[in-house]
Order: sequence, then C-alpha cells, then structure tokens
Amino acid sequence: MKLQSYVGGRWVEGSGEGRAFIDPTTGAELGRVDATGVDGAAALAFARETGGPALAALSFAERGALLKAVADVLVANRDAYGEIARKNSGNTVRDAAIDIDGGIGTLKFYARLAQSLGDAKTIVEPGQDTLARGGNFAARHIWTTRPGAAMQINAFNFPSWGLWEKVATAIVAGVPCVAKPASATAWLSYQMVADVIAAKVLPEGALSIVCGVGKDLVGALTAFDSLAFTGSAATGEMLRSDPAVLAAAPRVNIEADSINATILGPDAAPGTAVFDLAVREVVNALSVKAGQLCTNIRRVLVPAEHAGAFADAVSAKVSSFAVGDPADESVRVGPLVDLEQRDIALKGIEALKQEADVVCGGGIPDGVVGADAKAGAFLAPTLLSCADPAGAKAVHEIEVFGPCATVMPYRSVEDAVALAARGGGSLALSVFSSDGAVAKAATVGVAPFHGRVMVVDDEVGRDHTGHPIVMPMCVHGGPGRAGGGEELGSLRGLRMHMQRTAVQGSPTLLSALADDAAEAAL
Amino acid sequence: MKLQSYVGGRWVEGSGEGRAFIDPTTGAELGRVDATGVDGAAALAFARETGGPALAALSFAERGALLKAVADVLVANRDAYGEIARKNSGNTVRDAAIDIDGGIGTLKFYARLAQSLGDAKTIVEPGQDTLARGGNFAARHIWTTRPGAAMQINAFNFPSWGLWEKVATAIVAGVPCVAKPASATAWLSYQMVADVIAAKVLPEGALSIVCGVGKDLVGALTAFDSLAFTGSAATGEMLRSDPAVLAAAPRVNIEADSINATILGPDAAPGTAVFDLAVREVVNALSVKAGQLCTNIRRVLVPAEHAGAFADAVSAKVSSFAVGDPADESVRVGPLVDLEQRDIALKGIEALKQEADVVCGGGIPDGVVGADAKAGAFLAPTLLSCADPAGAKAVHEIEVFGPCATVMPYRSVEDAVALAARGGGSLALSVFSSDGAVAKAATVGVAPFHGRVMVVDDEVGRDHTGHPIVMPMCVHGGPGRAGGGEELGSLRGLRMHMQRTAVQGSPTLLSALADDAAEAAL
Repeated sequence: MKLQSYVGGRWVEGSGEGRAFIDPTTGAELGRVDATGVDGAAALAFARETGGPALAALSFAERGALLKAVADVLVANRDAYGEIARKNSGNTVRDAAIDIDGGIGTLKFYARLAQSLGDAKTIVEPGQDTLARGGNFAARHIWTTRPGAAMQINAFNFPSWGLWEKVATAIVAGVPCVAKPASATAWLSYQMVADVIAAKVLPEGALSIVCGVGKDLVGALTAFDSLAFTGSAATGEMLRSDPAVLAAAPRVNIEADSINATILGPDAAPGTAVFDLAVREVVNALSVKAGQLCTNIRRVLVPAEHAGAFADAVSAKVSSFAVGDPADESVRVGPLVDLEQRDIALKGIEALKQEADVVCGGGIPDGVVGADAKAGAFLAPTLLSCADPAGAKAVHEIEVFGPCATVMPYRSVEDAVALAARGGGSLALSVFSSDGAVAKAATVGVAPFHGRVMVVDDEVGRDHTGHPIVMPMCVHGGPGRAGGGEELGSLRGLRMHMQRTAVQGSPTLLSALADDAAEAAL
Repeated sequence: MKLQSYVGGRWVEGSGEGRAFIDPTTGAELGRVDATGVDGAAALAFARETGGPALAALSFAERGALLKAVADVLVANRDAYGEIARKNSGNTVRDAAIDIDGGIGTLKFYARLAQSLGDAKTIVEPGQDTLARGGNFAARHIWTTRPGAAMQINAFNFPSWGLWEKVATAIVAGVPCVAKPASATAWLSYQMVADVIAAKVLPEGALSIVCGVGKDLVGALTAFDSLAFTGSAATGEMLRSDPAVLAAAPRVNIEADSINATILGPDAAPGTAVFDLAVREVVNALSVKAGQLCTNIRRVLVPAEHAGAFADAVSAKVSSFAVGDPADESVRVGPLVDLEQRDIALKGIEALKQEADVVCGGGIPDGVVGADAKAGAFLAPTLLSCADPAGAKAVHEIEVFGPCATVMPYRSVEDAVALAARGGGSLALSVFSSDGAVAKAATVGVAPFHGRVMVVDDEVGRDHTGHPIVMPMCVHGGPGRAGGGEELGSLRGLRMHMQRTAVQGSPTLLSALADDAAEAAL
C-alpha cells in the first residue's frame, strides 16, 4: 500500500520510493508514504483559487453544516479507523478513542459553534467608540476572512485530532486547508480524508492532503496564507527560520511539545482525595497513548514530605500495567510509534538519570504481552525522582516523549511555581489542591508560562476532563518553548484565519455592517 | 551635543563618533547620536529584573496613574519639544502637534483606560464554559503579564507618538520598555525621556532608551520579551530574520509603511460634498508632515470619468503651497527628514514616472521659502496620474515617503477593491462615498487587506479624524506588506504584553480568580 495525496482536486501518487510506515507492535512494514513530485505550490494555488472562493461564498452556518457532514462521514467509518490506529499507532481501544473521537468531537463542536453564528460571513466585535464630538463619526472592529490557504503540518501522535482540530477552525473562518500528516501515522489521516472526499461533502479545494514530503509545501506560502505546525520545538524553529517563510511572512502558529508540570498543593497529603486524584492523573500520564501527548505531565511537583509516598503510590499502579500488543484487552500500555522514537526516548531517560533516580521502569520492559519486547517499540512506564530540582537542568528541558515523568519535591508554593516556570513555557499545567488560596496563587503564578491551567479540588473531584486533554472551548498552545501559539478556544481559534480591521465611519454605516455580521469577541 | 542613553538606571554616553543628526531645512548638523558600547543585554536584563517586578506590583489603575504623570511632564515641557521638532524634523507647528500631542493624547487615553480597570492586575474574559455535566468543572480565560521586557524600535517620522504609543500599552500591561528611537530624529525622544526620568515619575527600570546602535539590542531578547518595530518593510524583514530573534522567538510585532489607498465612490462626482472632502484629504496627504506618515494616502482610486477633475482640483491647491523653512508661518510643506530620504524619494518618483504622468511637482521645488532648495531636504508636493493601474506595478509597490500620491482611474467598485488589494496589505484605506451600498461593499471587500478603513459620507462630513491619523481606540497595523502587526485599539493593544491562559476548575475557583480581575476582551 502506498498512500496517495489529494491535491488540485485529484488523487496523485508520489513517484519515489517513499518512507515505510510500520506496525510498532511488531516492527513490520504496513505501507509507504511518498509525495515525490507532488507540487505544493500548485496545491496551495488550487486551495486558494478554488476552495477559497467556494468557502467564502458560504455563511458561518453553512460552513458549520460542512463540518457536521464531515463528522458524519467519520462516524460512519469509525470502526475502520480504530483498526488503523491499533495497527499503525499501536493504540489501545482507549488510546484510539482519544484521537479519533477527539477529532470527531471537535468537528461537531465547531459545527454547532458556526451554526450559532447564523447567516453572517463577518464578525463584528461588541462595542463602538465615538471618535468625534458630534457623535457622527465612530469606530467598530470587524473580522473578515483572509484570502489565503492554511498549510497545516501535524504531529504523529494525533493523526485524527490534530488534523481535524486545525481544519475545523479554518473551515469555519472560510479558509481552505492543505493538510500534511506526519509520515509515521499518515495512514489514518489519509483514510479519513479519502472517505470525506469520496462522500463529496466539501466544496472542491476546501481540503487537500499531502502524504509525504511534497515540493514547495512551505516554499510557496504567501503573506496571506498561514502555516500551522504541531511537533517538536526543533522542527518548529526550523520552519520559522525557513528563508521562504521569512520572505513571505505568512501567519505562523507553532505548538511544540513541552515539559508540562503538575503541582500537588501542600494540602495534598496521602489519604486526601486530591492526593488520590493526582495519583490517578499521573498514572494516566504513564499509560494513556503510551505517554505520547504534547500536553502530558512530565514533571510532578510534590511537597517534599509527600514526594516519596506519591512516587510509591504511582509506581505501585503502573508497575502492574501490562505492556504489549494493543489488540490484547489486558494491555494498558501499547508501543511508542516506532523504533526511532523508542530509541530517542531511551536516550532521553539516560539523560534524566544523570539528575534523577529510577522509581520504576526506565527502559525496555522485561516481558511484553503478545509481542517481542525488542522488535516492537515498547517502553516500560517510567517514573523518576529528582531530589534537587532547583539544581537540575535536564529534567526541565528534556522531554521523553513516552510514558515517562519525574517526581520533584518542593518546599513552598512559590518554589513550586518557580520550578514549573523552569520549563520555559509549557502547554498545560495542573494543580491538585483544595486550598483555595494555594490554587489561586499557583494558577496566577504559573499562568504567564502556560496556555492552560487545570485545577482539581474536592469540588471538581473526578469530574475533570484530564490534564492532557485539549477541550475545543479552551485555547491550546503555550508561550516560550511551547511555540508561542494559540489554537482552538471556541471562536478564538478563528483569529488565525481572519483579519481584524478597525472601521471608522458614520453610525449609519457601522450599523449596516453590523447588521450583516455576527457579534463576537475572538 | 551628543545624545546619551538611559540604561541600567543611569545615563551613559557612547564611546564612538556616532552619527550626525541634522536640521533638514539647512542641512546643518545639530548633534550626534551614539550608543557604541551601550550593552543591550544589560539594558534588557535591568528592565526585566528591576522594572518588571516594580510594574507587576502595581494595579492597572496605578499603572494608569504613571502614564498620567508622564503625560503631565510632557505637557509641562511642550514648547521645547515643538522647537526640537521644527529644528530636527523640519516640522511646521501643525506637523509637530500631530507627533507631540498625538503622543501625549495616547498616554492620556491609556491612563484613563487603565484607571477604568481599577485595582486588578489580571484580566478575565467574559463568559464561562461548562466542561463537565455536573456543572462542577468549567473554564474561563485569563490574561496575565508576561515576565519579560519590551524592545521598541521606532521610526524617524514620529519620535514622540511612536515612542509613547508603544510605551503606553506596555506599561499598562505591566511590562518594562527599552525604546530605541531612529537616529535621524532621536533628539526629541531623548529629550522627552530625559524629562520623564528627571521627574522621577516612573519606577526605576520601567523605561530605558538607547540613542544610537547599541550592542545586542535584539541579540539578547528571550522568548518572554517582545520586539516591536515600526519602519520599512525591508528592515522589518531583516529583524524578523535575525538569527538571535529566530532562536529566541520573542513576540514580534511589525508595522511597516504601506502603499495605502483612498477610494472615491462612483457617486463622488465633482460638485458633491464627498468629492470636496476627498480633495481636502489628498491635499493633506501631500502637505502634512511633508507626507511622511506610514498611513498616508499613496494611491487615489477615482471613477475614470472624474479622475482628471480630481487631479486638477488637488493640483490647483497643492501647487500654491509654500515649501520651505517650517519656522516661516506661510510654509505649508517643510523638508523631508534628511537628504538621504529626499534622494530615495526622488528615485522613487523616477520609478513611478515609468508608469504615471506628473500632474504637479515631481522633484525638488524651484523655489523654497527661507531656505536653500538643494541644501535642505525639500520635495515639491507631487501628484502623479497612472492611466493603466491594472497593468502597472511600481505604483502599487513603491512607496515614495514624502508628499507624493498617484491618481488612478477605475471602472467599477470591484475593480477599485482589486486595485486596492494590489498594495499587498496596507495599514489604512479610506472610502469617500455617500452611497451606503458602495461604502459597505468597498469596506468589506478591502477589509482583509487592511488594518483600518475610514469611510467618509455626508453624515460624517468634515468631522472625521483623518485618513492617516491613528486613534488609540482603533487597532493600528496591517496584514501582508504592512508587517502583519497590530498595536493600540484600546485594550486590544495589551495582547502583545500579556499571556492568555485557559483556566479549568471549579466554579468556586473561577469566581475567586474573576473577583481579583478586570473583565474585558482584548
């Protein structure tokens, strides 16, 4: 099997050998990804010239209906996607659901949101400023669709969610998309787009996909296009620094992995509900999707007197988890995406070991269920403990992209906030505390360094959505090392694809513009 | 006179020869600007470590009081500034007022705005999203101050306004500033900052200024700092592409000059009020500040049948304007900022002449009032006429940064919108029409390519604030060639200096956070 690309309104096959994608449980090749000869400039031009006007002609509500139709196609084919996710991503049933249903849910959320904007094609912000004394000259701010295409380069760990969360906001805004999935797991993205294209639910040119490394995918971007990237900080910097990107200056949004933290409040002593809730969350961090989430907990900041008890509680659970073939129902932890990622993770653990002790795991598991421990990309759930986090460096800077986290003791809440900030900017942080003053101080303290903060207290209990889970109503992104980007967040996600313009004129003109627009702040 | 720099809480003098700044009316040297040896890294560190915490400790209202105090210092010294503007910028009294009073007015506007936010230090967005069924887990978005410094590199044409409009939003947000004025007109920025520092109205480290080319001014920026630049598109691209900027990835905001347009509606026939209003505005474009405004009208799109009459009406006025020494009350058009700028403008006019005919002006004026026409940086108000704007290129791409604009005939409103878009993204466009449908269609059509659109109709009449004038309640910036930035716009200008964070937690926690915050959308 060789994955094709859908560009210029037709499926094309690369002319090269391409890159293999594998079943990480066995190491066996499943197929090849190749976009040799696929012309990125032509793909972008077709999106801009054919997809753009078609989407621009639709109202927000009509674009919402498109997303609903896409979601319906995906729901109808859902079983096949679970199979692909198991085979190509090593996902358990639960892992696959996060990616697949997360994508479908995000599409449905934006479908409803767009439909709530009604018949409009523009957005006007609330409020009008009078600019002249007589009151006959005033200003409002409106948002209109940017006349370009959205190039969307996704990460391997979310071939469904990553694809659709980016497509959703662009389509609502009226901007056509050219998606480029990561080669290692492009199969699922490919199959989903193939089903959507076959169902003919989108206008021609609204959605293209390049499976593999095409030509001029970023080289042909213009100032009115956008480039969204999710992946490593290093690749993000490379894209930002691409001479073509610098010369054209498209809007660029980068979501990079980050060294996210969770903080147990001083009140989160063993025996309290928040202690147990924190244990449960860190256990999830060391098992769900084999730890391969950009938002995952990597650093666990625990009051010094409870650090040992916390590490023991987590270790007791994850040590008993079966690692192995995700097709086996007893398996809690599947393989990493491929052997290269496993080897990078192993190297990362070695680096962390210079500053931290292994509590459990620490390498390839001794035995795995239904597979060969070394032929597959397996990594044991790994908990480390770093006694001197203030003096350490690697634990704040190296992300082991697998089921791996490090426990760190702290002395005061200020101390914990300062340690969290050592990540240099992260996507998500969680706080487990029922002390309102602590929760508030920690939240405000870490907020400048984070795109999202989740606070779990007794009132929330188990009813939270999870530290790593990106909810479409909340912004996703983070400052500094996390890339400085911002996606989703209900209508906030439309900013990337629209232009804000101050309109100055008579109250009559401003009313006429507002009559045609949906009123909202982005 | 050699301008010093205020960094690290003290005035320091550069150790080099520096660059001369002149009186553009005579060409005589007024003094020198030099920052040789001034350590940008140390200046930024001092701002971050001393100014940052001092500002962060203040509420929005207290920061507003700081700006009010700065404005009061400037008002008290206003006469001296007018003198400097005349001598070093060649400003007439009216020209100087736009820059000086524009800066003071913007400070006062943000002082009031900050005071309206009260005792808070954070901002919470309106609206709360429920994330779990029981209603005990929800989300709000808060804005907190970024823990960095703001490096602000300004253009030569607004040494006062450009300085203070950037400082105002940063200080309100709680972020310390390091300002770098353009060398050609740094004197006014220097004198204003010197007065403010002497008055001791700001916390130490809140405002630094580097007069000249310091060391590592952008090289020492970190991810949590920001870099704001106003100036040429070419320099903007150079700054964005600086390896240190790319590696550190501070927030970057660029406002570049642009080839702004004005559109006369099909109804704007000779004899109508909107025709006369458009003539008046283009006459201003060819005289005020000798045309040196980034937002100035460069392309005048006129219904083909009225293009000749319009050009004649403008030409009749500006041809009679006295050009010369701004100290002479009869003078309407002062010199450009220096001889280098004049020579660049002359070259630009030559390029435009390949595609357009000279209606009036076109070079160095034959006679000037109270000065030597060639020793000073004089340029005659120049109107060109381009018969085939659709086939032309230079008129849409070359900005002659002086009193120069080009009239272009158009056939339909769609045609006019398409021609306006040929600027590749601009700061400001104006529409002169009392036909509501035309005004609306033109506004929505050009909006994706513009940061601001001003519509003048019979209802507005003369009560508008002017095509080039940036009002602090309206966003300032533009997509594409204009740099893709956004400044000002009331609280919108705070985005650059704050971090938006989604906070997920119990309604109790979210209420507690909101209680301490000001509620607003940025």
